[in-house]
Amino acid sequence: PFDLGVLVEVDVGMERCGVPPGEALVELCRFVDDSSSLVFRGLMGYEGHAVFLEDREERKAVATKAMERLQEARHLVEEAGLEVEIMSAGGTGTYDVTGQWPGVTEVQAGSYVVTDARYRRVCPEFRPALTVLSTVISCPRKGVAVTDAGLKSITSEFGLPEVAAPEGVTVKHLAEEHAILTLDGDVELEVGQKIALLPSHSCTTINLHSEFVVVEHSRERTRWPIEARGKVR
Amino acid sequence: PFDLGVLVEVDVGMERCGVPPGEALVELCRFVDDSSSLVFRGLMGYEGHAVFLEDREERKAVATKAMERLQEARHLVEEAGLEVEIMSAGGTGTYDVTGQWPGVTEVQAGSYVVTDARYRRVCPEFRPALTVLSTVISCPRKGVAVTDAGLKSITSEFGLPEVAAPEGVTVKHLAEEHAILTLDGDVELEVGQKIALLPSHSCTTINLHSEFVVVEHSRERTRWPIEARGKVR
Repeated sequence: PFDLGVLVEVDVGMERCGVPPGEALVELCRFVDDSSSLVFRGLMGYEGHAVFLEDREERKAVATKAMERLQEARHLVEEAGLEVEIMSAGGTGTYDVTGQWPGVTEVQAGSYVVTDARYRRVCPEFRPALTVLSTVISCPRKGVAVTDAGLKSITSEFGLPEVAAPEGVTVKHLAEEHAILTLDGDVELEVGQKIALLPSHSCTTINLHSEFVVVEHSRERTRWPIEARGKVR
Repeated sequence: PFDLGVLVEVDVGMERCGVPPGEALVELCRFVDDSSSLVFRGLMGYEGHAVFLEDREERKAVATKAMERLQEARHLVEEAGLEVEIMSAGGTGTYDVTGQWPGVTEVQAGSYVVTDARYRRVCPEFRPALTVLSTVISCPRKGVAVTDAGLKSITSEFGLPEVAAPEGVTVKHLAEEHAILTLDGDVELEVGQKIALLPSHSCTTINLHSEFVVVEHSRERTRWPIEARGKVR
């Protein structure tokens, strides 16, 4: 017999998935606990509506409110006689609130590992560690260059990528297979030159690739497969 | 000995890659022709700046201008004594102009095979044949449902996906792993129900998946691997 541990998702204010604290939540937890093959392990509440708020105080306030809801849910479930062993919550933008919250056993901060251009504004204490390396394929005229990185290798829903290196270069447009770069006054690039792009959204960019190239002290150390890519069903 | 056939790209007005008609273009073609192991086969000019223009007359005019530039390039190269065996151009939105252009031997219309929500506005004569099947995972309150298709399975740079089926449902927001749906007045969905989403951009959506599921008369017939996915370097 295989017993599947289950966390019940609480809607902590994001209004996406989960059940708000209340009788229906308690009922669902009881249903899990009473089912053969299912083991009730605890609660999960993701405060995704807080993680990107750029104002630190506002982010803290919204995350705090979410954690109060999760705590309320926990009380209700415990009063019903169930044991909450795991309380999972938090994102990269709210790790400092949620991570200190009494009873939280797991923080779902994933982006902090490599961060990205958007999270850098929210959590400047984490240094970006992910770039997409692209190659200049055309320098059609002064002030413009084209590289081979497009929407099939770097996503744009959180904005255009930034240029990590070299300096004086910005991304003007991302097409399917091309990035159009604007060069500051006296900057010149040449065909074949490498451009390091900093994604605005690391999660969906990583999902476009099959492996990480791990670089340490400017040398390739190893490659890590991106095993969850495409496992969207 | 292996001889590599080469097409030289002409900038036909998109100002991205390629060389405009002129002495530099002729010089490049000659360089290819003179190189050992390279065989000059002809010219390529992509009028990507025309393919999405929704006004048919404007699209025709811009594509015509582009083909005139490609023709001008051909004359220059032929005057220099080189044979233009292949003249490649065109996109899905301009197949009707470019495909009838004298001397064009190849039309690069790719999207017409399955088309998408954006191309449907430009070329209504092609019927969309690609959907992303997603599953309702939450019906939190009246008028709202959540499915498991997010930015990791369907792209949004050309706009949100449309809902191919069922009727009365629209996509309000795409998150990383979730689509938030708005339901018309009396429409109700249930958890587990399938929703067919019509991508706004088929190219970058296909690139997120590892295989096509080929359906004929509502039955799965076969699966085709998406072999070029991730081959972005």
